[in-house]
Amino acid sequence: MPYNIAIVGATGIVGSEFLKLLDKSNVKINNLLLFASEKSINKKIVFRKKSYFVKALNLENLKNADFAIFAAGSKISNEYIPKLENKKIFIIDLSSAFRQKKHIPLVIPEINSDLLKDTNNRVFSSPNCTTTIMLIALYDLHIKYKIKRIVASTYQAASGGGKKLIDKLFNDTKNALKKPNTKNLYGFNLFLHESKINAQKYTEEEMKMILETHKILNDDSIKITATCVRVPTIRAHSLSLNVEFENRFSIDDIYKILKTKKNIKIFEDFENQNFATPQIAANQNDVFVSRIRQDLSNPKAIDMWVCSDQILKGASLNAFQILENLIKQR
Amino acid sequence: MPYNIAIVGATGIVGSEFLKLLDKSNVKINNLLLFASEKSINKKIVFRKKSYFVKALNLENLKNADFAIFAAGSKISNEYIPKLENKKIFIIDLSSAFRQKKHIPLVIPEINSDLLKDTNNRVFSSPNCTTTIMLIALYDLHIKYKIKRIVASTYQAASGGGKKLIDKLFNDTKNALKKPNTKNLYGFNLFLHESKINAQKYTEEEMKMILETHKILNDDSIKITATCVRVPTIRAHSLSLNVEFENRFSIDDIYKILKTKKNIKIFEDFENQNFATPQIAANQNDVFVSRIRQDLSNPKAIDMWVCSDQILKGASLNAFQILENLIKQR
Repeated sequence: MPYNIAIVGATGIVGSEFLKLLDKSNVKINNLLLFASEKSINKKIVFRKKSYFVKALNLENLKNADFAIFAAGSKISNEYIPKLENKKIFIIDLSSAFRQKKHIPLVIPEINSDLLKDTNNRVFSSPNCTTTIMLIALYDLHIKYKIKRIVASTYQAASGGGKKLIDKLFNDTKNALKKPNTKNLYGFNLFLHESKINAQKYTEEEMKMILETHKILNDDSIKITATCVRVPTIRAHSLSLNVEFENRFSIDDIYKILKTKKNIKIFEDFENQNFATPQIAANQNDVFVSRIRQDLSNPKAIDMWVCSDQILKGASLNAFQILENLIKQR
Repeated sequence: MPYNIAIVGATGIVGSEFLKLLDKSNVKINNLLLFASEKSINKKIVFRKKSYFVKALNLENLKNADFAIFAAGSKISNEYIPKLENKKIFIIDLSSAFRQKKHIPLVIPEINSDLLKDTNNRVFSSPNCTTTIMLIALYDLHIKYKIKRIVASTYQAASGGGKKLIDKLFNDTKNALKKPNTKNLYGFNLFLHESKINAQKYTEEEMKMILETHKILNDDSIKITATCVRVPTIRAHSLSLNVEFENRFSIDDIYKILKTKKNIKIFEDFENQNFATPQIAANQNDVFVSRIRQDLSNPKAIDMWVCSDQILKGASLNAFQILENLIKQR
């Protein structure tokens, strides 16, 4: 059965990647409804050799969709999604607007695809990109050894802040190359994550890593702390993770577990000292894992290095997998 | 009394910065002996309005120095320093060659300047840059609360790998701007620290953070794990630190302690969300500390963000402070 699919934020980085995934997929499309903000209206997008034109978001139009993907930020999601609840339409929301709402499932299909089976649910949230990447790397280890505590430091790419932040990275870098002694924010510089800081002095991004992990793993007892940093890279986030388990493990068994996962790539070439980098992970669906090792400071902990394209597995690909799962179940 | 001071590796990044510090100082100089590798021989260096010419390293010449600063890497230090031991000359070695030798003090003057008073010692090692920065930030907290465990992730600048790595950063970045779809190591990319990996899968840099901390704090019971990463920044290292203490603390008291330290700058502007960055710390003597907060995952731990010019406090400035201390005591 062909579907009417709406993409809200179709010209943004995440929306564009979602469209690419949909284009290559076997999902049968009846109509494609592409919405974006004013500056993209009437923009032509070619999809499966057919031309579509971007339109201004309109509630009545949206109601014609079987599935709507929201990739336009919390403000738009907050405004439109409540008006579509209890309708026939399935909604996959990439914003953080509803992630902490009890009745709205927060889904990483590799972890909790069962939540997609409840036919009463029509709205699904796709989690924060950094959290998704971390949990893909850790989920099977958690099932086997139970995570007690995570200490995470992130190395996040400009694309997480949209085209605006990528442009700033390029402009600041060009200026820094021209005038090496002038200071700027992003030219050969890094900075603590720009999201709002709460009373406990954690950023929103760090709190998402804590609260969304609790919700997705359905376990508030997991201890997590994080420091999120924006680095001058374009695409793919990296994470330095220290993970303490409740149960004993062997590093060999950890390798064995990770090797069986088809969406995890262990990338370790000790001979040439070649490990995962953001560039290696960019435009790849896999989560790249490197330098997995026994933590010398704690017999029950490991250190590991994780790189993954946050636009793909952290956002577009995860939303696409939710869509595929929903379609399969119909 | 004016001194004869030799600098081995006088044209390198660390040697040049040492010369600048010496130039501005009150240290009285009789003769300056500047040594470097072949490509810099006969290079003119102006110091206090007088011209000096770089020479090839020569043991007989070196013996005329009252103080020799070695900033030319472990190979040169290993070759020359043993031949100068038991001579009158004082040696400050910036390489890692002798840092783990029992009879050679590893000195951060703010922490263990007492080791400079033993008149039998003639050779002193200056510690690894990342370790030095970390310990300046943590030493007074350790004295008060005793560090139990540190989980460190680093964001290290190109200059830590010398001029060669800075050139690579610039070239790779220029190429990446020209051809955005071509991969390269360092253009808008980061990579795990390039130092050798041991059987436990820790890099040399990470092991230095562990072993040198133990030696400097004279306490092997402190648990440390680290993941060291080279990021595309030019100067100043950053560290994301999670620090667990043996004793109870309050965040207010931690601020009070850090505020009294004249070489630590708490850099936190919550209103404008402006925190320490490598660019802010570059060319500054202070260690910049930011986002000090109660770790939500452990009541006895804190998170903190540290940035400091690793060429200065991590190397040249630390060696210069050792020199000043030795001179004062004579």
